[in-house]
Amino acid sequence: MGTLETLPGKRDQLVEILTRHSTDLEEAGCLLYEVGVSEESPDTVFVAEVWTSAQAHHESLQLDSVQAAIREARPLLSGQMGGFRFDVVGSPLRS
Amino acid sequence: MGTLETLPGKRDQLVEILTRHSTDLEEAGCLLYEVGVSEESPDTVFVAEVWTSAQAHHESLQLDSVQAAIREARPLLSGQMGGFRFDVVGSPLRS
Repeated sequence: MGTLETLPGKRDQLVEILTRHSTDLEEAGCLLYEVGVSEESPDTVFVAEVWTSAQAHHESLQLDSVQAAIREARPLLSGQMGGFRFDVVGSPLRS
Repeated sequence: MGTLETLPGKRDQLVEILTRHSTDLEEAGCLLYEVGVSEESPDTVFVAEVWTSAQAHHESLQLDSVQAAIREARPLLSGQMGGFRFDVVGSPLRS
């Protein structure tokens, strides 16, 4: 779960990059990747990710398509980021 | 996306309550509800939720089963909570 702060007015450009359809992510072990915004924080992009493992996430950062997206996104970012990592242990939606 | 701090040693009890299988949540509009923990924060429970709408989430808090879970969980909590809300705008996993 993370937040990315953009330079003023660049939020929607970052959203466009992060929501671009990718089959690489799923193949790399990404189970969920939801991108969001909030009226209260006009220069923040929220990202909620679930991966099959921390290792799968780590390795995904080396994919060509991910590296290209990082290069494209970097000039939009203020440098401020937040978030936390945790290990999923269950869900009430699954029996 | 939220974090719940428990009293020392009560984390796993809270996880048990939050991961108990419920069909009510899905019917109420819950699309995702993942409960997690992290070695680095031994008294923290992480919850990532996606709902069809903020209204659906709000109404779910009135369900009998949710009210009962809140009553059961309250004595385990330290009172410290964190997190943020955002509106999902897309996912690279969907085309």
